[in-house]
Amino acid sequence: MELLVTYDVSTIDTEGERRLRQVAKLCEGYGLRVQKSVFEVVCTAADLLKLTDAIGRIIDDTQDSIRIYRVPKGTFGAVDTLGIAQRLPHAESLVL
Amino acid sequence: MELLVTYDVSTIDTEGERRLRQVAKLCEGYGLRVQKSVFEVVCTAADLLKLTDAIGRIIDDTQDSIRIYRVPKGTFGAVDTLGIAQRLPHAESLVL
Repeated sequence: MELLVTYDVSTIDTEGERRLRQVAKLCEGYGLRVQKSVFEVVCTAADLLKLTDAIGRIIDDTQDSIRIYRVPKGTFGAVDTLGIAQRLPHAESLVL
Repeated sequence: MELLVTYDVSTIDTEGERRLRQVAKLCEGYGLRVQKSVFEVVCTAADLLKLTDAIGRIIDDTQDSIRIYRVPKGTFGAVDTLGIAQRLPHAESLVL
């Protein structure tokens, strides 16, 4: 399963900055950071459930926005990139 | 064709802030802004070429990062959302 995880975590206060760091750190355990708030994740359905649950425990539901897109295998390898963006090689499943 | 456009535009100077505004404004003519730097776009292959060309003219290749993921029809409608994120209704093609 390939997932694109994108997020906006409100950083108007130090609490928000802490949540942002935690979301990023969590996602780094599941996939590759391709932009500040965008991760490419290759994982199992069970991992998706764990990731979603863990993110839900971190964020502030009234301020933060998380989107998890399920995309077909091969989507990451076919991404169009401009500027400093690069296609990144994925191991089969990066979940630690 | 459904596209997920994600970007990081460097805003270390006013020039970068101008590029960021321009990229956002351009993408708003093609699709729906779902997060600060994430757009969902429903468009034709010809529109994709125009969008890519126009973005390329705005950004600084040495600082900015643009990713354009081609995703299957229905991907947007099946996105998992947490917090304030919402699934947004798409007209068939939003290109103005």
